[in-house]
Formats: sequence, C-alpha cells, structure tokens
Amino acid sequence: MPGTPITTGDYPHGSGSRIGVWLVGARGSVATTAVAGAAAIAAGLASAQGCVTELPAFADASLPALADLVFGGHDVVETSLSARAGLLVEAGVLPAAVLRAAAPGLAAAEEELRDGSARPGESQAETVARLAADIRAFRNRHLLEHVVVVNVASTEPSPEPSPAFLDLEALEAAMAEPGSSVLPPSSLYAYAAFSAGAAYVNFTPSTGARLPALWQLARRHRVPHAGRDGKTGETLVKSALAPMFLQRGLTLNAWSGTNLLGGGDGATLADPQAALSKTESKQRVLEELVGAPVPGQVHIDNVPALGEWKTAWDHIRFEGFLGVRMTMQFTWEGCDSALAAPLVLDLARLAALACRRGESGPLRALGFFFKDPVDSQQHNLSLQFEALRTWALHPAEVLTEAAS
Amino acid sequence: MPGTPITTGDYPHGSGSRIGVWLVGARGSVATTAVAGAAAIAAGLASAQGCVTELPAFADASLPALADLVFGGHDVVETSLSARAGLLVEAGVLPAAVLRAAAPGLAAAEEELRDGSARPGESQAETVARLAADIRAFRNRHLLEHVVVVNVASTEPSPEPSPAFLDLEALEAAMAEPGSSVLPPSSLYAYAAFSAGAAYVNFTPSTGARLPALWQLARRHRVPHAGRDGKTGETLVKSALAPMFLQRGLTLNAWSGTNLLGGGDGATLADPQAALSKTESKQRVLEELVGAPVPGQVHIDNVPALGEWKTAWDHIRFEGFLGVRMTMQFTWEGCDSALAAPLVLDLARLAALACRRGESGPLRALGFFFKDPVDSQQHNLSLQFEALRTWALHPAEVLTEAAS
Amino acid sequence: MPGTPITTGDYPHGSGSRIGVWLVGARGSVATTAVAGAAAIAAGLASAQGCVTELPAFADASLPALADLVFGGHDVVETSLSARAGLLVEAGVLPAAVLRAAAPGLAAAEEELRDGSARPGESQAETVARLAADIRAFRNRHLLEHVVVVNVASTEPSPEPSPAFLDLEALEAAMAEPGSSVLPPSSLYAYAAFSAGAAYVNFTPSTGARLPALWQLARRHRVPHAGRDGKTGETLVKSALAPMFLQRGLTLNAWSGTNLLGGGDGATLADPQAALSKTESKQRVLEELVGAPVPGQVHIDNVPALGEWKTAWDHIRFEGFLGVRMTMQFTWEGCDSALAAPLVLDLARLAALACRRGESGPLRALGFFFKDPVDSQQHNLSLQFEALRTWALHPAEVLTEAAS
Amino acid sequence: MPGTPITTGDYPHGSGSRIGVWLVGARGSVATTAVAGAAAIAAGLASAQGCVTELPAFADASLPALADLVFGGHDVVETSLSARAGLLVEAGVLPAAVLRAAAPGLAAAEEELRDGSARPGESQAETVARLAADIRAFRNRHLLEHVVVVNVASTEPSPEPSPAFLDLEALEAAMAEPGSSVLPPSSLYAYAAFSAGAAYVNFTPSTGARLPALWQLARRHRVPHAGRDGKTGETLVKSALAPMFLQRGLTLNAWSGTNLLGGGDGATLADPQAALSKTESKQRVLEELVGAPVPGQVHIDNVPALGEWKTAWDHIRFEGFLGVRMTMQFTWEGCDSALAAPLVLDLARLAALACRRGESGPLRALGFFFKDPVDSQQHNLSLQFEALRTWALHPAEVLTEAAS
Repeated sequence: MPGTPITTGDYPHGSGSRIGVWLVGARGSVATTAVAGAAAIAAGLASAQGCVTELPAFADASLPALADLVFGGHDVVETSLSARAGLLVEAGVLPAAVLRAAAPGLAAAEEELRDGSARPGESQAETVARLAADIRAFRNRHLLEHVVVVNVASTEPSPEPSPAFLDLEALEAAMAEPGSSVLPPSSLYAYAAFSAGAAYVNFTPSTGARLPALWQLARRHRVPHAGRDGKTGETLVKSALAPMFLQRGLTLNAWSGTNLLGGGDGATLADPQAALSKTESKQRVLEELVGAPVPGQVHIDNVPALGEWKTAWDHIRFEGFLGVRMTMQFTWEGCDSALAAPLVLDLARLAALACRRGESGPLRALGFFFKDPVDSQQHNLSLQFEALRTWALHPAEVLTEAAS
Repeated sequence: MPGTPITTGDYPHGSGSRIGVWLVGARGSVATTAVAGAAAIAAGLASAQGCVTELPAFADASLPALADLVFGGHDVVETSLSARAGLLVEAGVLPAAVLRAAAPGLAAAEEELRDGSARPGESQAETVARLAADIRAFRNRHLLEHVVVVNVASTEPSPEPSPAFLDLEALEAAMAEPGSSVLPPSSLYAYAAFSAGAAYVNFTPSTGARLPALWQLARRHRVPHAGRDGKTGETLVKSALAPMFLQRGLTLNAWSGTNLLGGGDGATLADPQAALSKTESKQRVLEELVGAPVPGQVHIDNVPALGEWKTAWDHIRFEGFLGVRMTMQFTWEGCDSALAAPLVLDLARLAALACRRGESGPLRALGFFFKDPVDSQQHNLSLQFEALRTWALHPAEVLTEAAS
Repeated sequence: MPGTPITTGDYPHGSGSRIGVWLVGARGSVATTAVAGAAAIAAGLASAQGCVTELPAFADASLPALADLVFGGHDVVETSLSARAGLLVEAGVLPAAVLRAAAPGLAAAEEELRDGSARPGESQAETVARLAADIRAFRNRHLLEHVVVVNVASTEPSPEPSPAFLDLEALEAAMAEPGSSVLPPSSLYAYAAFSAGAAYVNFTPSTGARLPALWQLARRHRVPHAGRDGKTGETLVKSALAPMFLQRGLTLNAWSGTNLLGGGDGATLADPQAALSKTESKQRVLEELVGAPVPGQVHIDNVPALGEWKTAWDHIRFEGFLGVRMTMQFTWEGCDSALAAPLVLDLARLAALACRRGESGPLRALGFFFKDPVDSQQHNLSLQFEALRTWALHPAEVLTEAAS
Repeated sequence: MPGTPITTGDYPHGSGSRIGVWLVGARGSVATTAVAGAAAIAAGLASAQGCVTELPAFADASLPALADLVFGGHDVVETSLSARAGLLVEAGVLPAAVLRAAAPGLAAAEEELRDGSARPGESQAETVARLAADIRAFRNRHLLEHVVVVNVASTEPSPEPSPAFLDLEALEAAMAEPGSSVLPPSSLYAYAAFSAGAAYVNFTPSTGARLPALWQLARRHRVPHAGRDGKTGETLVKSALAPMFLQRGLTLNAWSGTNLLGGGDGATLADPQAALSKTESKQRVLEELVGAPVPGQVHIDNVPALGEWKTAWDHIRFEGFLGVRMTMQFTWEGCDSALAAPLVLDLARLAALACRRGESGPLRALGFFFKDPVDSQQHNLSLQFEALRTWALHPAEVLTEAAS
C-alpha cells in the first residue's frame, strides 16, 4: 500500500558480508576499469591508489573489503567487458598486467550483466519491475548483504519538468500508462534500485534520484542514496582552489573554463542539451562557494584525438588589495576512467556502510565526491573531507534521517 | 634580572585603543603599500579587499579598527615613502587616486621612521638597546595600547648555527662583546621588539625570532610572536591544492616549480644563499603535507622585466588508479606587494588581539599566513583558516601558552 | 561614365609629401592609440617599438615619415580623443608621459573627425557621397599627397549575399534606391574611399572591400586596397607555429582555442553573429596552411574584467613518428590596442608607398598583417615577411596589377 | 700521407644503392626507435609521419628509400635492441604492433652492433683505427653505396680546449701517444667516420666534428658532416616563434625556460657540466636570432616520473608599442625518442644525398635540424626549411664546398 513504510528488514539479505555493486552503464570505460581494478587489487597485483576509502584515515571504518564486492549491472550495448578492457589497455588506461590479473573477475562480472533496454510498448512501471527483478535476483543468487546501484551511464539531457516528479502516487500513476515515458532512464534505474531495496548512487549529472517523488520512494523502502555528478577534474580543482581566494579576501572577477574531452564522453557532451546539465553543475560549485554568480563561461568540446584523456584549462581573474588585478591559470590533464573508477568503489563501500548502519535517505556526508551534492551547499573540499571522515568513523555523532 | 618574568603590565601602555605597527623595512614596497592602503581605506577611498580580518567571518572578533593603526618603523635606505609610493603608482600597484588619498597618512608615517643601520664598533647589545628605545619612544609618543613589530625587510641568508642561539644568557653574553655580530639583523629586531614589550611578526623567511634564546626572551617579556615567511603565491596555492591529491589518494610523483620574480625581491633572491631559505620553506610545505619528500626542484629566477609582478609555474605529475600518470600545471601571476600588504595589516591586528588577551609566546593559530608556521605542521589552508577563525572568535576554547 | 578608368592623376594631390590617414572608428582604442603614439614618437618621447616599417629591414623603402602622417576620420560615437586617451592611461595602455606629449596631436586630429552616422531616409549613394566628400575635403585642406582610409571600427556581422555585390553597375543601382541598405557599413566606407581616390585598408574582419563590385570600383579609380582582419594575437601565433608542425611532418590532430576578451571588442564579439566572421578567419589560416580542415573549436568569450587585455589559450594535439601523440599549449596575454595601433601606422605607410608607385588593386604583399589576406593563401608568417620586404624594397621585381 | 687529399673514390663503394646508417649509441631509445620505425614503415605497417624527407616537398629529391637503409652501430652498453624496444612499448613510445613488425629488422641490426668501449692502455689512434675498421667492415659486408655515422649517444661534457684541436697534424701526434685522451668520445667517432670515408652527423650537443682539426680530416677524405644538437622541442619552438616577435618589432625583454626531462636524458643532464653544453645551444639560438643577448635562464631538471616524456615551459615577456608589456607562455609535452628518431632517418638520407653528389665538408643546408647548425647563424625555422628544400632539389644552384 503506497505510503506504508517498508523496512530494509523486509528484504532477504544474505547472512554473509558480501556487497553487490550493480553498475548502470556496466560495459562502459568507468565500470570496466572499476571491475578490473577491484579484481587486480584483490589479487594483490595492483595498489589501491586513488581509492579514498583505502587511506589510513578510513582504516577504522566498518567498510566491506574490496574483495567482498560482487559486480553486476545493466547496459544497452553489447561490447563484452573483456573487449572493452582490451581497448582500455591500448588507450593506456589499464596496464596489460592488470588485464591479465583481472580476466577471471571480468568474466565473473560478465555473467551478471543484463540488458537494460526498454522494450517497445512497455509501460515504465513494467520496465522498472523488470530492472528491479534483475537486481533482486542478483542479490539472491549471491546471498549479498546489500546491493548498491551505481549509475555510470552516459549523461542524458535534463527532462522537462512534470507534476508527476513531485509526488510518488502521481508518478506511479503516470508510469502505469502503456507506453509511458515520464521518467528519464537514470531515474528509472533509481526507481528500480529503491523498489528492490538497494542503495542508489548517481555518479553522473543525469537526474537519477533527484526528484521529490523518488525521495519519497527511498524513504518508503528505507534505503540511502547519494549523488550527483562525480567530481574528478576541473570541478574537483575548483572546490580545492576557490576557497583559497575567499579565505584571503580576494574577489573572483571572472572564472572561465574550457574542457576538451575525447572518448565517448566528449561525443555525448557535444550535444549541447546533454552538456548543459554538466556545465550547470560545474558553475554551481563556484556560485555556491562564493555566494554570488562569478562571471565566466564554461565550454565542453569534443576532441576525439584525446582518446580517454581530458584536458581542462581554467583562467581565473581576481582582484586584491586596492583593486590590483591578478591572474591564475591551470590545466588539468586527466584520464577520466582512472579518476572515476576508484571513486565508484569508494561510493559502493560507503553506501554499504550506510546500509549496515540502517541509514536511509540522502547521504549528505558523501558530498566530497560530487559536483552537485545532495542536500548540501558545502563545496570546500577539505571541509567535505573532514565531514566524510567524521561520518565514516563516528556514526553516533552524526544525525541521520533514519534516526530522526 | 635575567630569568625574572616581566609582565606586559610593566610597560606604560596607552589608555587608548590605538595600535602601533612598527615596520622593519619600512621604506620597501610591501610596507609602503600597507601604509598607503590603510590610509586610503580609512579615508573611505578604497575597499579592504584582500584583508582577511575584514571578512564577515571575523566581524565579531575584538580586533582594532584599521583606522586605529599608527605606523612607524626602521629602514636602512633613505627613499621617502612618497617617492616609493610614486614608483608603485607607475608600476600599477597603487592607483593614482589611492596615492592622493594616502598622502597625509604617508607623511605621518614618514615622521615615525628611524634609521635601522648598525653603527661601526657598536656591540649588538648596544644596537638592540637603541632599536628598542625607538620602539618605546614610538609607543609613548602616541600613547599606543600595544605595538606590533612586523619584519618586511629583504630576505637575508641563514646564519651559521651558534651555541648562543640556544640559551638566552649565552646570547646576551655574546651580544655584549664589542663589535659582536652573533645575531642576523632580523633577529636583532626580534630582540629589540621583545625587550620593548612589543609583539613580533616575521613576514620573511629570515631567522627573526626562530631561535630558542629568543623564545625565552619573548616568554620573559610575556609577548606573542608569529611567523614565518608569508605565503602569498606559489606556496599559498600549494597549501590549497596539495591536500586535494592526498584526500583523493593520488600519489604525487613530482612537483616542480619555477618562480620568475622582478623587482627588488628578484634581485635579492638571485643570491643563492638568500634564496635557499626561501626554497627550503617552499618545499617544506609539501613534504610536511605529504609526510614524505616529493621529488622536484624549485627555481627562483630574477626577471627584471616583470617589475613588481611575479609568475610561478608549477608542474605536478601524479599517479592514480592502477598507476595511470596524470598532470596538473598552474601559473600564478601576482603582484607581491598587493598580496602581502593586506596580510601585514591582518597580522598586526591579530597580534594586537593576542596582546589584548594577554597571550604570549608563539601564535600557532596564525599559521594560515605562513609558509613555515611557528610550532605547527598543519599546512592545509582550509583547516588553517578554520583554526584561525576559531582562535579569533573563541579564545576560551583555545589553550594558550599564557594560560598554561 | 562607368567602366572608364580614372587615373589617380585625376585627383588634386598635394605637391607635398604628407600622407593622410583617415580612420574609420577614429574614436576607438586602436585609433586613439595610433594617433597618440605617432605624436609621441614624432616628438621623440617614445620609441617606435612594435612598428614593422621602423625595422632596419625597411630602412631603404621610400616610406613616408611617421611625422608626415596627418590624421582624421569618421566615427559614430562622441567620446573625445583626449577622453578616450585618458581611459587608455588608466587601463595601462598609454603611459601618462605619452599622453602629455600627444596632447597637441590628439587635438589636431580631433579637428579632423567627422560624424559617420547614416541619416534617416538617405540612400546609400547619398551616404557614400557625403563620406567621400569628407575625405576629399581632408585631402584638400592639408594638401596631402595621398589619403589612406583604415577601418578600425567594431566588427560587424557578415551581410546576406546579394547579386548586387557581384557587379558594380548593379551595386550602384541598388545604392541609389531611397532608404537602401545593400552594403554593410564597412563596405560603404570602402566605396567612399575608392570614389575619393583614397587607398583602403580593412583591419577588421568586416566585409570592407571584399566584394567583386568594390574591386571593380578600386580598379576604376586606380587605387590600392588591403586587408582583412589584422592578426595581432592567437592567429599571429598560429601563422608562426603551424608551419613548424607541417615542416616537421607532424600531423595536427586537433587545434582548440579559447579567447577571453575584455573591453569593447569582447562585448561586440559576445554577439555570435559578429564573432562568426572572426572565428572563421581564425580557422581559415590553419586550414589553408595545412591544406585540410583541422578539428577543433574556437571560442570567443567576453570577460569584462580583462579590460583592454585579451588572453588566448590554444591546445594543440599532434601526432608524430609511429603515431605517438603529443601536446603543445600556449597562452597569449596581449593588449589589443598596443598590438594593433603600430600596424595601422605601418599599413598607412605601406599603402601610401603603393600609391606613390602607382600600384592599384589588392596588395597581396601586405598579407603579413592579416588573418584573411586578400588574394593570397600564404599564411606562413616568415615567408609573408620576406614577401613584404621584397615588395617594399624591390618594386620592379614584383608584378603588380597596375603593371599587368 | 697527411695533407694529401683522398677522394671518396678511394673507397670500395658498393654498386648497389643501399646506404649504411651507423649509429653511435645504437642501443639507446632514439636509435632503437629509428631502427624499429624504419622496419615498420618498410613493412607497410606504419606511416612515415614525422619524417621530413617523406613530405611531398622532397618527393623529387634523389634520396635513398627508407627500405634501402641498413643499420649498424657502436654502443658501450649491452641491453639488446629487442629488450630496449620492449621497454619503449611499455613506455608508450612504440605501439605493440610496430614491435612485432620490426622484430626481424631489430634482429638484423643487432648482428651489426659492435662494442664501442675504449680499451685500457690503448692510444686514441688505436681506438679510432679499430672503430673505423668496424665501419669499413660494415660497408664491405653489405656492399653499401655510402655509410653515414650518426651520433645519438648520451651528451658528454665539453672538453678543455687544447692546441691539438686546431691542427690535424698536432692532433694525430697527440692521439698517437700511449694512453692518450685528447679527444672526447664523440670526436673519436667523428674521426673514425671520416677516416673510414663515411659521412658524420652529430645529433647531440657533444663536440663531435666541431674541431678545426676534424674539419681538415673531413676535407682530406672528401666526406660531408652535419650537426649539431637536434632541435626537437623547446628550441624547435623557439626557432619558429622568436622570428615572429622580431618581424613585428616587439622587444624580447626576457625569455625564461624550464625543461623537465625523464628517462636517461634527464639523469645525464642532471650533471650540470653535461647540461651546460645543452643550455648553451638553447640560448644561442635566441641570441643569434635577436642579434643580442635576451635575459632569462634555462633550467633542465631530471623528473624520473616523466619516463620517456619531457615537458618544457617557456615564459616570454615582451614589449610593444609605447612600452606596453605583454606575455606569452607555452608548454611542450613531447616524447623525445618519437621526435628525434625520424630526424635521424632524415639526416641519414640527406647526408647520403650529399655523398651521392660528391659534396663534402659542413652541410649548411641541414641547419633546419639543429640547435647549433654548423657554419650558419640562420635559426629562422621557415627560412631553414626553404634552404633545405632548395638544396635537396636544386643542387646546381647551391655552392658547395666540394665545388668551390
């Protein structure tokens, strides 16, 4: 019955301590790198460099071991994980030795991948039921303690606003219509995750769980969620650098940025509609840090010759004592998959920790990872890190929605 | 009698609330910009942009008003403040309108400048007595509540180690010798400040109060001190950026830097001995943040064509998930005087606050301003800012040396 | 009678050697800097740095002296030259000493400025007659040997194609219609220049003389013309750098650029239509050098905080031996007026040289100065320089249209 | 008999058209990349991208085909070519496919490598006789038309000046002493090349043939030589960019550079003595282009984390019209071996062309390739390219030493 809370205890959790990581966009570069990397680290053939939860600061948190993560997921393409991993070796993202070590892990994950395509004529209610069934079956098959769904699919355009977004009952009614398309794909997966009793993490700028109706759904199923839009490059640097100007009383007159992206991400974001959700969260960080809009444009260009790499150039014009104008510039040349993949593992572990503690609803303490953190306007990276560490180690000191 | 504590109550403090700012290197660009800027801001003709203590975060701290600062100081050159200010207008550091507004303030400060040169044959005990007398006379002339001595003179080479540095009695004995030269100039001024009951702030990488014997002296006179080496450019950025790499588990494989400096600073630091104390504190920040040495060289080049400006280029090579190597670069094009001058005002106000509270000894909470903060290895800029704010607003919550 | 050639001998040239420089956009930053600079150099108070024609390589060319240039022009705004010059002093473009030296020169030029606004209801034939009369009167008033009209007005959008552009008779018929608007403003001035027997130089990306009908007009009046779009920054660097990649057999996989412009230029080019003509000529240089399109976008952003300065960042991805991919990046931080103004003087002198020699039609040898050189696809800067020098010094060795 | 000219006709040249390329430092990264690349291109498995002599501009020059090059050489280390090539695959310099295609070519070259170490007690006369015998045997074994010796060994320190450098007879006398060490290694190889009737190309900043006595030797044996110090990065860019400033009348106030080098080159150049010869030729380019010293320092830092890559940052401060100061900066991120290897092939082909034409002595027309071109002060890259093309295609129009 709608409105009746369902506790996570209603789901048949495994008695073991293994955690399922269900990747939406499971055949993409980020997902493949995460699966291969976790396997190589578990096999002792790679260091856990780049994983936040492997830092000494988190040694005492009750996180699942990397070796206890079990991978599965949805995708709409058919490239095999091992074929994708081969391309990533050629692109210099995966060392050849990692690929060899990860082969069994990739093969195991391959078995757990399901087709995420919508079927013609299906209502969205039917689609999410099918997707949720895939997630439940995954949990049951492996007797998993919890499942965390992580969205690492391509960025989608923002949907048109709809009244059905504001209320769960209205949403369910709209989704029940034959051929309905009220929710964008990322939100369908969030719906499926929640209704299967799984946590949901949105690593992309797509809508995901960022709708009031879906918050209601998460609350009903007592599951946590986090997002959105992992910060791995230009915005990561912004959240470390912009506080410096503010703390020193320097006025940001203009902050301009150009992002050159190769690979699939570049192609997706060459669509201005898809790019919009991304440039918006990039600019929001700055505006919310400063407390006022900062002049300056952000460009995202598709440069196929960059392959899996991306380059950002930021030009910062600021004003100091007596109006003297000065300039800072930076370039960031990063490999997106290598930056994002370990954070996917971190987020799965941290969301599992929240599940273990019985926390539900938006996980504000995970803002450290995101450009557009759920229910938070704190963007100072160091303060976000301190908040994350405090949350991970001292649950009693942090008020959670479950407890309130 | 040596060893007997002298309380600040022994000094004839004025009943007013005016604070003396005694600048060592008073005729240089930083000092002149600070004096002219304070005058222009007090006259309502310039904003206090670039002043940390003018941020809303410090609104409730019991700081002296900028208009309550009275300037004087020592120097060994004879260029008048107004001549120096004229050069700074030509160099684009001071707007012409500021110079007009600041003329009376510069003239008033000019009256308070004294010759800081050592006299032939004088013992260092005699020199400091003379310097201290200048400071006491300044305080008495203006009935100042407290005096803060701020060192903004040219960087000097590090002195050879001496046993006299370790013990105040040994130091006093050595300084009493005719023609003695045991202390470098910056330390002579620290000695003079302490013995005159004034706080001492070292904005340069020179030795200043950084000797055990001088800590004893500060304690005996119950005055606070802070330093050293104001961070205004490359190192400021390092202390904001390096934590980002650490918090994300990214390994810093190399951090290389080249600093191009014009103006007098460039010429001074073209002397490798003088530059050494500067490059050392630049590297220490990184090493203490990371907890291990980071490969990479730091260069300081004299480029006269840059005038009052300096440009730093830093190249950071880091390693992420599965060993993927990535690069960040930044350039910082700043005007040293415009960056340093407001911090001199901040430090004078904050040291005065410490005096008002009766705090003495090293002011750890002022580490936010320095490359090589006294008695602290915290270099994370955001955490330094939080510590500073807490100290400025909530004195009771912070243990001070005076209280312990 | 249309079609009948008119020789330059038909115009009442002065017997003296003074050359008129008639600036379209005469009250703008570039024009004001050119007039003030020429005056200061003539007064011996500034060096001719930045003037190509003052290089030793041109010492033997029969160029008019800088002191023999007489300035006048059209504009549609009313800011006085001295007011504009004052703003340029504040912006750091003109030294205060230059302004003092240039005051008489600016005042003299101010007397020669005329309103260039179109009048309501006027046909374009009437407008150009009025503009041409202003130019003729200027020549007669000062007994000038020749007049060179130089367009330094704001960039205008490209006009819609029209059949009247292709044939002079059709154009004249269209312009005779009451209220006609067949020609964009820059082309009206070109028409006025040619019909007044003056040379025309287009320093902007606007249409100017770049229409077949106007070429016919120039030929009929036997006057030379040159253009278009002065290269002073990013494109200048492209024309020096791109040949390096080609000469070394390195493949340009992508060349991306972002231009941050302050001042009026930034505001004008924030209009994508106006910017289009500029980004097009920026890309054409590269494409014509390489002989094929080079992937990559060019952005022009308006950043008011940059004032008279502009910053370009270019990111070049190239491929070498065995497909190894490498990267070059550059930033160019220039003052547009300071870069353009001396070239305006150069072009006036060189166009006057062509007039003296009786050359008419497009001056290909001036391609060195332009992004989109008339009748030439040579963009290699060094080869353009050699061609310019040869032309300036050895007229007999160069075929000119007049001679053929 | 010393002094008697020996014509190249004295050597038993093969009747075929194959050219020997004898690499000094044959087991290093540059040599290995050149050998592997030539093999892969000959096999049709790689493009000749990065080879100047493969540009359409050189299609009509009588150059030997890449497939007609036969490789051999000296080295003092023992790493096999295939082991080195394996390391280059890991470092991302050689694609794995190229390595497979090049295996037979590498194996064939491996057979032709000889130990270049000096033997204890040997006089230098004996050493060069042995080295020359290796070169002659190589030519005879393969019936080569000509042999070109190319120095790609590690940079060595500059030798102390010696009177024996100035005269061939004095040199020969000095070299005949038992245990003599008058010539540095690079010059020993030049001596051996000349005395074996082979051309000599110095791709390094080491001394090589740059001694009057060795010029006499080259003339006596009627063989050509070229050098020195291949320009592949920062200096290449300088020679393309610096002319731009000069042609525009812009004054170079300062040109500062920092070079971060990984790999073996970085380690060698961390020795300031070895680096000196390199930084000197880097600065000379600028000074000879400008005609006066340009202020600014050049740093070379060893940054092992860069592997085979190097990054240069250059900061250029220049002054334009009315003294306005502006800035250009660039970074160059290149793979040294990938940049140098194709030029080694180019130089071998072009030196072979000179041999075919009977040209001897210094090949000025090859200045395009070098930081410190023999017998030339022309550093403008585009003019060097034109000179090279003219020389390669129109031998009759160029005066050669052989002809004069």
